[in-house]
Amino acid sequence: MRKVAVIGVGMVKVDHHWKESLRSLFTKAAINALEDAGNPDVEALYVGNMSAGQFNKQENLAPMLADALGLGSKPSLRVEEGCSSGAAALYMALKDVASGMHDFVLVGGVEKMMDMTTSDATFIISTVTDQEYEAFTGLSLAGINAMVMRLYMKKFGVKRESFAKFVVQMHENASKNPYAQFPFKISLDKALNSAPVAEPIHLMDCAPIGDGAAALIICPAEKAKEFTSDQVDIIGAWKANDTFLFHMRKDFLSLNATIEASMNAYEMAKITPEDVDVAEVHDSFSIAGILAIEDLGFVRKGEGWMAVEEGLISPDGEIPINPSGGLKARGHPIGATGIYQAAEIVLQLRGDAGKRQVPNARIGLSHNTSGFGTSAIIHVFKAK
Amino acid sequence: MRKVAVIGVGMVKVDHHWKESLRSLFTKAAINALEDAGNPDVEALYVGNMSAGQFNKQENLAPMLADALGLGSKPSLRVEEGCSSGAAALYMALKDVASGMHDFVLVGGVEKMMDMTTSDATFIISTVTDQEYEAFTGLSLAGINAMVMRLYMKKFGVKRESFAKFVVQMHENASKNPYAQFPFKISLDKALNSAPVAEPIHLMDCAPIGDGAAALIICPAEKAKEFTSDQVDIIGAWKANDTFLFHMRKDFLSLNATIEASMNAYEMAKITPEDVDVAEVHDSFSIAGILAIEDLGFVRKGEGWMAVEEGLISPDGEIPINPSGGLKARGHPIGATGIYQAAEIVLQLRGDAGKRQVPNARIGLSHNTSGFGTSAIIHVFKAK
Repeated sequence: MRKVAVIGVGMVKVDHHWKESLRSLFTKAAINALEDAGNPDVEALYVGNMSAGQFNKQENLAPMLADALGLGSKPSLRVEEGCSSGAAALYMALKDVASGMHDFVLVGGVEKMMDMTTSDATFIISTVTDQEYEAFTGLSLAGINAMVMRLYMKKFGVKRESFAKFVVQMHENASKNPYAQFPFKISLDKALNSAPVAEPIHLMDCAPIGDGAAALIICPAEKAKEFTSDQVDIIGAWKANDTFLFHMRKDFLSLNATIEASMNAYEMAKITPEDVDVAEVHDSFSIAGILAIEDLGFVRKGEGWMAVEEGLISPDGEIPINPSGGLKARGHPIGATGIYQAAEIVLQLRGDAGKRQVPNARIGLSHNTSGFGTSAIIHVFKAK
Repeated sequence: MRKVAVIGVGMVKVDHHWKESLRSLFTKAAINALEDAGNPDVEALYVGNMSAGQFNKQENLAPMLADALGLGSKPSLRVEEGCSSGAAALYMALKDVASGMHDFVLVGGVEKMMDMTTSDATFIISTVTDQEYEAFTGLSLAGINAMVMRLYMKKFGVKRESFAKFVVQMHENASKNPYAQFPFKISLDKALNSAPVAEPIHLMDCAPIGDGAAALIICPAEKAKEFTSDQVDIIGAWKANDTFLFHMRKDFLSLNATIEASMNAYEMAKITPEDVDVAEVHDSFSIAGILAIEDLGFVRKGEGWMAVEEGLISPDGEIPINPSGGLKARGHPIGATGIYQAAEIVLQLRGDAGKRQVPNARIGLSHNTSGFGTSAIIHVFKAK
């Protein structure tokens, strides 16, 4: 297997893009990535997307986007894995380059969620959970996260304030990110006292709905230097599943797929969690973000909230988490999220992250999950 | 790259499966394939599916099906490429085994289309075409095929009877296939005089809507003999795109993606079209089946209808096409179709195709396309 590098990233601001189509959004992100990479001749396209079928009534997505980009007869593929569709696309593209199947591959994610009512979009998001055993009974993703948050608060003696502080930090990070959907700070009071969604989860604990697209160009590490002096290598990657049904979990407070995928990715990268200088984690809800910090091995189980309280997760802290603002404030255009995460890590490791730059970041990690942790995909990146 | 073999196939009858769920249908096909292969320990799951989101309100499909099969934390992925989602899943799984990433992989396809009205299902099928430039204007897949059929009839001086004879042959083949949705013969009169859909296309020219699931087990060819004495090797595979928009095609009577993918697959397999003993082609409409016969190189352009007239495509003809009954009569559960095709070819090459067995079949081909040939995926198989 060959080592693989990222040589280009492209993003559009996560937003309400009512004047853009799914096609134009993706094309913009892809062209940004191609230009950033010095316009290599890409051989294949991978697209992560959760539900263009339901959101936009458009399936057969990859040939459409390949054609829009002028890729001719070159092969393309869409992969779907709910909220981790983006990272799943990267994982597949990575394998193709690592195995020697392709040299230069364009991999992106896109989701256009705003062309409908919020309630319709929220229903569609619920289709990542089990329709027969969960969604059918009225159990939403917010509901699952609320039960877990309540259990976490009880078991570890934590108050809602700690979660609200996570949210405040995400907004502070996003305030420095030109690609963020919510690039502004919020007060602790606002985070705490927003409208209740499913107690103890309030509106500000939830990632928003938004339109977005992001893209990467990857190639064999040894060919990267022809295109950039700032290549970022992917030194570890793993993908694992947990039980699909939440009620079948042995431990409701652990994301087992995250634990397994990250342990394997660390081993592949020959690092420990302590070596990670910056991470983008899947904080679809504030509780999910805090569990991720624990299950990725950055702190012990039950101590994620303390890391937030002590400021360890801020960009100048010991374990900088989500300098982009995370799903919470950068935004969560579902199938694009995993690529936004990877793009942010690449910018951080290149030192190109502007006002949100984490100092001396050499090794970064992206963590993308689907449903309530039904699957997890980890990528570990290293500055050349 | 390692050579890859198919060591197990499983199918359920294509039908109205109102008492089955998406999950139970897929699980049955997968278990059939696992048992057929002697129950190897599979390492990963690939699923082809076009639109469980729209048909069944279920995304995040692969982790759900992996969990239902007891695959634990093993990686899984759903791929979507409209009507060729099944072959796309096989193509991805093949790469994983060829590259050494995995040894034993379960690859399947599933579509459950009958839990709604026919008009709703027909709309969903149209979402494989371009929503902004085609579907929006009212141009359906039947409409595109009708225009092409009319052009073909005019250019080559062909009557509707020739297409109807293709349909009659498909039903005759299906009458011997226990997995077929329509396992009965029809008369030429019935094929000709069924209700018009989009002139010159009548109902009997169209593939039906149905529920189905099929699965394969693949592994490195050198490990296959531990499990079976009847392995079938995959000796060629290619995937290509055409323009997504039909009106951008340079030649409306050629499936360019099919031409490019098959030529590359033949080269990889070191064969010519004449070496193919049996083929399953993508006959979503009778015109599509006839174009496929030409574009795969079995006959010259404009002579596909003659091959039908002369009986060359029958199971005992020179170029046996769709012994299963094809999309037309075996059925076309969209994301599963490519796997049904591959499974049929494997049974044919093993000599396990019962009453529909093509004599002395040693090399077989499957041809799966999406939309009106927006992409094509070819697999070439050879009996060990």
